[in-house]
Amino acid sequence: MRFELTKEYLEELISSIENNDVAQVKKYVNDLHPADIAEIFDEIDIEHAKFIYLQLDEEASADVMIELEEDIREQFLQVLPAKEIASVLDNLDSDDAADVIQELSESKKEEVFMHLPDVEQAGDIADLLNYAENSAGGLMATELVSINENLTVTECINEIRKQAEELDEIFFVYVVDNDEILQGTLPLKKLLITNGETKIKNICDSGVIAVKTNTKSDEVANIMEKYDIVALPVVDSIGRLKGRITIDDIVDVIREEAEKDYQMISGISGDVESGDSIVHQTKARIPWLVIGLFGGIFGALVIGGFQTQLGNFPKLAMFIPLIAGMGGNVGIQSSSIIVQGLANNTLGFESTFQKLLKELSIALINGLICSGLLMAVSIFFTHSFRFTLTASVSLLSVIIFASLFGTFVPLSLNKFKIDPALATGPFITTTNDIIGMLIYFGMGKLLMGI
Amino acid sequence: MRFELTKEYLEELISSIENNDVAQVKKYVNDLHPADIAEIFDEIDIEHAKFIYLQLDEEASADVMIELEEDIREQFLQVLPAKEIASVLDNLDSDDAADVIQELSESKKEEVFMHLPDVEQAGDIADLLNYAENSAGGLMATELVSINENLTVTECINEIRKQAEELDEIFFVYVVDNDEILQGTLPLKKLLITNGETKIKNICDSGVIAVKTNTKSDEVANIMEKYDIVALPVVDSIGRLKGRITIDDIVDVIREEAEKDYQMISGISGDVESGDSIVHQTKARIPWLVIGLFGGIFGALVIGGFQTQLGNFPKLAMFIPLIAGMGGNVGIQSSSIIVQGLANNTLGFESTFQKLLKELSIALINGLICSGLLMAVSIFFTHSFRFTLTASVSLLSVIIFASLFGTFVPLSLNKFKIDPALATGPFITTTNDIIGMLIYFGMGKLLMGI
Repeated sequence: MRFELTKEYLEELISSIENNDVAQVKKYVNDLHPADIAEIFDEIDIEHAKFIYLQLDEEASADVMIELEEDIREQFLQVLPAKEIASVLDNLDSDDAADVIQELSESKKEEVFMHLPDVEQAGDIADLLNYAENSAGGLMATELVSINENLTVTECINEIRKQAEELDEIFFVYVVDNDEILQGTLPLKKLLITNGETKIKNICDSGVIAVKTNTKSDEVANIMEKYDIVALPVVDSIGRLKGRITIDDIVDVIREEAEKDYQMISGISGDVESGDSIVHQTKARIPWLVIGLFGGIFGALVIGGFQTQLGNFPKLAMFIPLIAGMGGNVGIQSSSIIVQGLANNTLGFESTFQKLLKELSIALINGLICSGLLMAVSIFFTHSFRFTLTASVSLLSVIIFASLFGTFVPLSLNKFKIDPALATGPFITTTNDIIGMLIYFGMGKLLMGI
Repeated sequence: MRFELTKEYLEELISSIENNDVAQVKKYVNDLHPADIAEIFDEIDIEHAKFIYLQLDEEASADVMIELEEDIREQFLQVLPAKEIASVLDNLDSDDAADVIQELSESKKEEVFMHLPDVEQAGDIADLLNYAENSAGGLMATELVSINENLTVTECINEIRKQAEELDEIFFVYVVDNDEILQGTLPLKKLLITNGETKIKNICDSGVIAVKTNTKSDEVANIMEKYDIVALPVVDSIGRLKGRITIDDIVDVIREEAEKDYQMISGISGDVESGDSIVHQTKARIPWLVIGLFGGIFGALVIGGFQTQLGNFPKLAMFIPLIAGMGGNVGIQSSSIIVQGLANNTLGFESTFQKLLKELSIALINGLICSGLLMAVSIFFTHSFRFTLTASVSLLSVIIFASLFGTFVPLSLNKFKIDPALATGPFITTTNDIIGMLIYFGMGKLLMGI
């Protein structure tokens, strides 16, 4: 029942396209889900993709458009005439249509608006464009079924029939009062099992959870996830029903948030996939490498300042990677716990000071274990108590510093409304490297008198 | 409309509990969503939580049970008698009930089963326990509305009324043939807008996407996400309808997968939150640190082997952190792209060899840029062309090695059915450190003749 994209399938499809065999191509893609067609487009040349796209019927081409990866959609939008785009938008939900239209140039945007056949939908889309992209308003669609609370069940069913014609599926019916203020939801199930004369007011669920149009998208995601909500109504500042957000859009938000944080911690800027071009991948990876490089050069200068010590005792170099590496590891651990806590809204009620105090205790335990182990092992092959002591005390100090620093930085970034995930990037690691070297060589000077 | 947990609220609630003021406590929690009550339990003592729990009505206590964090639920389950647990399970969907019962000891499990009031539900739960936890069978619930395709719309509505009594909400009606084989879905909307004499067979959507009971949960997540499915039917090997998975359960799977990978890359084992105890946090963090420590000790031994070179030319130590750090950064970049690609199923059709070849090109570009920059800067402060050349060539080699290694390892782990995310942990970084030192000091020996 489910389509699995194979290399063989692709090869046959491409050869049909190259033979200009329209009937065969149609046969290949006719029964596919739009998401599968979009997946095929991701794997083949844009020219081949266009050939297929032109064979699709109106509704399918709209559905494929919204499933496309952003870079491929951009290429499509550039070549399609405004009239064609307008007819695609006409087949989309308002939120998807707004997403597509946002990717157009200003002049093309206007042209497309002029060609939109349904004035009401054009108005809805234009309204949606006013909301910030990462807000509930930017995520919501205006297509929904809303019913006045004073109708009876029978009147309500008639009204739903009327409103539902334009909708793919209905999960909830929203109940509003005479001022369009959201009063509750009406599960379709209740319509099926309630007497026709009953007033909607008396059977609707009034404990409905809603968000404001300006609620941030990550908060929307947290709410829908926490309360297991499939479709969340969005209201304006006085409570009037403006739209609804469905869980599939939120799944994308959750996935994107997680990927963004993952990319940050792995030192990659932007959305990169293994299949992306060499240039695209290089662009996403080089910035962090250059930052790391300059951090490393700075570290080299710091070590260069301790040449006398290194000359007197060359073995000192032995623990440089260990001290630097452990500082990095500990720092990333601490920051990532804070970053995840901020993302999931699970940081609890401890103050920054309490958090740092707790982190200090953890660092002390971890630091004592690690430096104790290092001491036990190092004495065997360095044969020097002072050198062993220098390495161990430095390790303990670095672990404590890196823990506190790794906790403090993301909390501070967040306070200044900067993405706290920045703290898991190369900045922290590089700073820890440098501080680590200062501590280690300082200790060497102090404890070994070199 | 939405509850926001504050410190003040908690304090007042706790003081009411300590005053044994049942009426006041009930007033505090009565209108709360079960997810909010669970959130409160996460912040207060287990004794206080129990006090509240005992005031909840049957349905609320079941809903709270399923929303609790696993460690707190465990504490609750230990103290509740089997009969009490059975009455909680009776109010849960079969998938949630199976999740809870799985956390019990074998003997208590049996006792609970004996107390389950509804024999049919007990059978469903026992069946669900047979499926692997991370499979579609382990995720699905058996509560659903299924309709024979030969019924008419009117008969169908009557049948839904009967079946729906036990369900919270219905999103889809599943259509089966006389052998219970899944034939399609029936959006409720169609029931409202179709003539009563029409046969279900003629209005149902037959292009339904379903999974088998043994489909892995990450694949289920990818399918529901790709096709924007709210409720996915699960069938057995001959296509008989067995249950359905709703998107809210999949949101949890997606979140957990993302968190697992994030924890691995940040060197944390297990589920840790900022609010967890010091002991819990230390336990999750020390294993990776110890692995990193021993990697560092091994690296120290490698550097110790180059004492003559360091003695002859102490400045050699300067670029140790840079070479080690850049190897780590590049390796993590490469592995994380593969790990994400494997998780999202977006690796495409390139063979391992093609992937390595591409990675080599990217590494060459990044390596040439970084080593070129290093060369330009280093000549100014090292005043030695040979030393600068040693550092730059080493950097280039390390970047190339780390890229290929970071690509190869997760792909190989995955081939052997080991979690590829392991490759983003300290193993890769530590190995890169050691190889980096060997390359760097080897180059020093070779190019500088020290």
